[in-house]
Amino acid sequence: MEIESPPVHRERIVPTGERRGLVLVHTGDGKGKSTAAFGLALRAHGRGKPVLIYQFMKVPSARFGEHRVFEQLGVPIIGLGDGFSWKSKDLEHSADLAREGWARAEATIRGGEHFLVVLDEIMYPLRYGWIALDAVLACLRERPPHVHVVLTGRGAPAELIELADTVTEMQMVKHHFKAGVPAQRGIED
Amino acid sequence: MEIESPPVHRERIVPTGERRGLVLVHTGDGKGKSTAAFGLALRAHGRGKPVLIYQFMKVPSARFGEHRVFEQLGVPIIGLGDGFSWKSKDLEHSADLAREGWARAEATIRGGEHFLVVLDEIMYPLRYGWIALDAVLACLRERPPHVHVVLTGRGAPAELIELADTVTEMQMVKHHFKAGVPAQRGIED
Repeated sequence: MEIESPPVHRERIVPTGERRGLVLVHTGDGKGKSTAAFGLALRAHGRGKPVLIYQFMKVPSARFGEHRVFEQLGVPIIGLGDGFSWKSKDLEHSADLAREGWARAEATIRGGEHFLVVLDEIMYPLRYGWIALDAVLACLRERPPHVHVVLTGRGAPAELIELADTVTEMQMVKHHFKAGVPAQRGIED
Repeated sequence: MEIESPPVHRERIVPTGERRGLVLVHTGDGKGKSTAAFGLALRAHGRGKPVLIYQFMKVPSARFGEHRVFEQLGVPIIGLGDGFSWKSKDLEHSADLAREGWARAEATIRGGEHFLVVLDEIMYPLRYGWIALDAVLACLRERPPHVHVVLTGRGAPAELIELADTVTEMQMVKHHFKAGVPAQRGIED
């Protein structure tokens, strides 16, 4: 019986190299971009590392399942948005919030006190031009070298992909919404 | 300024339909398959739902970051493997363990006491033929309708993709291992 080597183990044979913070990008139109970031946050927290999660498209009062657990664990998960949607009337307010949010996130990343900083759904304000891509790239390049940063959202800019260490595209192969199955509490939120 | 509708919000406009358990598959060669499953487990747990995680490629004594946190939260995360790798001498033992593990997982899914059951890295024993695909498909089809099941691993079989409600392919766009950066504690484990 010929056994294909399981990549999960093969991956452990890695070249010797430095231990340093990584820039990880989760993009694509499929599920799992944010939940994979939460999984990384969970793992790092489990290793006793300080973690902070910023969410650019969630309001500060969001109380999804992940907010409840991270609160219980003492991992800050901070909504920076105003519930912006394509129906929003006041996009200037959303843009202002995104800029203020980025200022907080940048200070956290540059501060170097966190092992992992998650910038959840930052691709939206980036794509809308509310946050300058150059500012984000500069912050990532100049950050303290031990800081890991995870950035999520559809449509990651090419320059960010170029700068990142690891990029995963979550591709939607199929989705239950398309079959008429609605959002399920505890799964979608 | 023309604003593209953010899909995260558009997704909330879903057809009315039943609330029921979903079969979710995370496959592909990229990162995030297991961490996204952990994120879903975290979210469901945060909603007060009973969750159980089986790991087909981890030993029972695994103490990665995720094991530490899930233990703290009271979410069982159960390694079913023997540290199998492509260097293993005794593949029959690995096959036996996979079959025993599947029997446990099947009993849990059919038992209906859990909102969400994660079958992490089940694609490996499926592809090696250690677990019969037909048995897994039958269990998923016949399970109590409220049970969500997440299955992860590269190379999901076509019949499983066909049966699943939602399938995401995590595609590797780039990976830090390829640039010579080694595994980072707290990120990879």
